[in-house]
Formats: sequence, structure tokens, C-alpha cells
Amino acid sequence: MENNEALIIQILAHRNAAQLKLIRETYAATYGEDLLKDLDSELWSDFQRALLLWTLDPTERDAYLVNEANKQLTSSNWVIMEIACTRSSNDLFLVRKEYHARYKRSLEEDVAYHTTGDYRKLLVPLVSAFRYEGDEVNMMLAKSEAKILHEKICDKAYNHEEVIRILTTRSKAQINATLNQYNSQFGNAINKDLKSDPKDDYLSLLRATIKCLTRPEKYFEKTLRLAINKLGKDEWALTRVVVTQAEVNMQCIKEEYHKRNSVPLERAIAGDTSGDYENLLLALIGHEDA
Amino acid sequence: MENNEALIIQILAHRNAAQLKLIRETYAATYGEDLLKDLDSELWSDFQRALLLWTLDPTERDAYLVNEANKQLTSSNWVIMEIACTRSSNDLFLVRKEYHARYKRSLEEDVAYHTTGDYRKLLVPLVSAFRYEGDEVNMMLAKSEAKILHEKICDKAYNHEEVIRILTTRSKAQINATLNQYNSQFGNAINKDLKSDPKDDYLSLLRATIKCLTRPEKYFEKTLRLAINKLGKDEWALTRVVVTQAEVNMQCIKEEYHKRNSVPLERAIAGDTSGDYENLLLALIGHEDA
Repeated sequence: MENNEALIIQILAHRNAAQLKLIRETYAATYGEDLLKDLDSELWSDFQRALLLWTLDPTERDAYLVNEANKQLTSSNWVIMEIACTRSSNDLFLVRKEYHARYKRSLEEDVAYHTTGDYRKLLVPLVSAFRYEGDEVNMMLAKSEAKILHEKICDKAYNHEEVIRILTTRSKAQINATLNQYNSQFGNAINKDLKSDPKDDYLSLLRATIKCLTRPEKYFEKTLRLAINKLGKDEWALTRVVVTQAEVNMQCIKEEYHKRNSVPLERAIAGDTSGDYENLLLALIGHEDA
Repeated sequence: MENNEALIIQILAHRNAAQLKLIRETYAATYGEDLLKDLDSELWSDFQRALLLWTLDPTERDAYLVNEANKQLTSSNWVIMEIACTRSSNDLFLVRKEYHARYKRSLEEDVAYHTTGDYRKLLVPLVSAFRYEGDEVNMMLAKSEAKILHEKICDKAYNHEEVIRILTTRSKAQINATLNQYNSQFGNAINKDLKSDPKDDYLSLLRATIKCLTRPEKYFEKTLRLAINKLGKDEWALTRVVVTQAEVNMQCIKEEYHKRNSVPLERAIAGDTSGDYENLLLALIGHEDA
């Protein structure tokens, strides 16, 4: 590692959002270019891409990632779902606002235009949702909607409008109660019942949606596991999860990873990456302790 | 008219939003009750309902009206569509935020739960939209989406997901360009082609949606005309349109009304109402001049 890059990592990996913003503005003033614009270059190394993503503030970063997903074909639905389901209602709204400002279109407009069929039916309401975030749970509703989900799954109607409605409009607390009811009333976790065809991409996305809404740390653990073992189709997953979760939920994800893989996340990443990229990722996942 | 009520009208009809808020707070402090709670009473006269709606700030009023619509069966879809399509993107978002605070659920959650079929397919994305509001228009897109709309209308597929996508996600400027293209390419205004079955309630709602998105003053004129001539099913329309539009777009609506009916709106309202209710409505529609 050259001295400059070591210094950049040291500075960037330990700065908060306000300081990062200042760095970006200095960059723009110095080089006359927006860092975000540079991000579109396909010539970046993993290190450069991770570094530049990290310098964005979380709202800009999510808007950028969704826009990029809207232009791609591979795995882009997962990125859109992940951002829609794991951010807070208010943060997701701020991403939609940033999307207007930067791309002169609405986020849901682009998602609707670039998707079709079942993916569109699921993703457009997911990105448009402004879920209630209180803890209140209606148990009667949880029971009746668990029954609806079970009926539709028995009929293999995975794209039924009632399934979509429940998952895209109810609060996370309410969905959690509904899925607990499902488990109690019908004997299986819903995601087990949704595994009838493991190769069906829409079904995989539906299971991942449920995981993101109820146990995001488990979703992120699995995403990292597949990325590190090169089993996923999601080529940017390692960078994306580390960068977007570094200041959010990394401690839980690390614990989940260690439990599930019997190896600490640090060691797994060190074994899978090298050089500046490795150093940056390790600095970022240690961020909370630093 | 008693002195007290004349005074109330005089004060309330000429106050701005900040002053109205103060009045509400004074009311709450004096009577120990929230005005909005009183609104749920079914004992109110037209006058009292109009007065209390007017004292709410626009965001609270819209949240209240949508919640009320979610509990009713008659004409409620129209109220939901009207609020979703004629408010600015930011104002609609503020209504969703207010809905969380007041009803402990999300607005789209209640709309999705209380609607079915084609109405749900149209209304949920309408209330969830955060449309881009710039003037930019993509003419290529306008042409291709005009063609899509025409194909679906020829096939009588009025509830097709592409029709819904275009109307619920595109900016109002873009929709306007698309509908102009429709008119130029296919020889009819789209709403003429959507009149194949004048008794189809969904088709009527679709036409009204298009009108609200592109020519709201024409939509409000027609709504007032039907209400004043007792031809509509929308019993609260007169109060709702006058109260919600008094500080927004009343001048245009009055001009449109006069042109279409050869009678000034003031005179039409005076002929249809009486007493305090009449005085309040007249004070409100003259608000901009007052």
C-alpha cells in the first residue's frame, strides 16, 4: 500500500457523515468534478469504487445505487429491494427526494419503467412505501392476514395482490406479528413454505424481502457469505453491504456472520480480498470500535 | 345569523393557516377537546362541518378527509384520488406523515386494505407517488407511451398495468405531453376514448384522475357543478372543494365555473345554500379578494 492510499483510508474510514461531506466538497473544488459523476466510470478498481461510495452521504449513496440498479439487468432487483426494505421510512423518503434532485425523475418511476411482471408488482410498492414505524400491533389482523398468506401460498399464488399488499404496506412490527402467527398456526416459517421451487428467481426475491423486513442482519449475513464464497450473482454485494452498513448495523451483522460461519467476518474478508481494498473494508467493519 | 356565528365567520374566513392553528389551540384549551375529534360527530350541520374543516391546516385536513374516505363506501374513492392527484408531491408526502402521527397506520396501508380490484390497482400507487415536479419533458417517451395508452384503450384493457404505471409514476408535465401526443396521433382526446361505457364507475374514476393530473380547475368546476345541481353521489363535495381550494386555486375554479355555467359561482352557491352555511362558503370563495 502506498503512503497516500494508506492515508486516504485512515482519514476516510474514520470520518463521520459531516466530515465526509466536507471531503467531497474539497474534492469538487480541487478537481472541478463531482465524485458521484466519477463513480460512473467503469475503470475503477474495487478499492476506488468502495472508497468513492463511502465518501457519499447515505442518502446520496442509496439514490446512486438504485439509479445504477435501474440501468442494469443482473441482480439489480435485489439492490432495489434491499434499499427499500432495510432503510427507515424517513431515510427511504430522503432517498426519493435526492433521486428527484439528481436524476430529474422519480425513483418509483424508474423502477416501474425498468421492471416487468411480478418484479414490478412487488418492487414499485416497496420503494413507494412510507411505512408506519410504531410498535403497535393488531393481533386480530395478524391472525387474519397470516391466514390469507397461507391460503395464497397453498395455491402457489405467490404474486397475489393480497400477498403484495400485506408485505408492502404493513408496518414491520405488524408483519413480524403476522409471520409469527403464520408459524404458530401452520407449523412452518413462511420462508420454508416459499421454498417450493428454489430456482424461481421471483420466489427468492420474495423470501429475501421477508428477511429484510423482519431480520435484516440475517439477510446481510447471507449476502456477505455468498459474496465472499463467490456463490452469488451480486458482484458488488461485498462492497455494498460493508459500505452501507458500516455506520448502521455492522455489529449485529458481524455477530450473525461469526455464528453462522464459525469464522469472524474480518478473517473471511481478509482471506477473500487483498491490498488497499482489503484494508479499506477492514477499516470500515471495525469502524464502530475505532 | 346570530352575532356569534357572524363573528366566527368573519374571523375564520379571513385568517391564514398560522392564525387558524392558534384558534384551534385556543379552542382545545378552552373546551378541552380537539376540534378534529369533534369533527367525527355525525350531528354537525353543513355549517359546522365546513367551519371545522376550515380551521384545520391543509395537511391535517387532507389526512382527515382520506381517513374518513377509508371508512366510507360511497364516493370515497374519488376523495382519495382527488387528494392524491391535485396536491403537490411535497404536500402529499406531508399528508402521509400526518396520517402516521394521527392514525398510527400508513395512508397507503389503509387505502390498500379498504379497496379491491381495479380501484386498489389505481389508488394505492396514486397515494404512494412522489412525482417529479420539474418541467422537463421527454418527447420520445411521450410518443411511445401515447401509443401504449392507445393500444390498451383499443383493447379495452383500462386496468392494464402499463396504463396504471404511466398515470401513477410519470410527472404531471410528462403526462401532459403524452396526452397531447395521444390527441395528435390518434385524433381524440384520451378522455373521449375512455367514455365507451359512461356507467362504468372505474372508467369514470380513471377519467377524473386524468383531469385532476392535467386540468385540476376543470375537475373542480365539474365537481362543484354536480354538487350544486345535486347530480353527484358525492354529498360533501361542495364543502370539500370550497374549503380545500379556497387558498389554493379558487380564482381559476371560479373563472372555469363562470365560463362553463354562464353563472358566477357565488350566485350558484347562494341559490343552493342558505344561512350560516351560505355565508361561510361565500366568505371562503371570496377569500383571495378579501
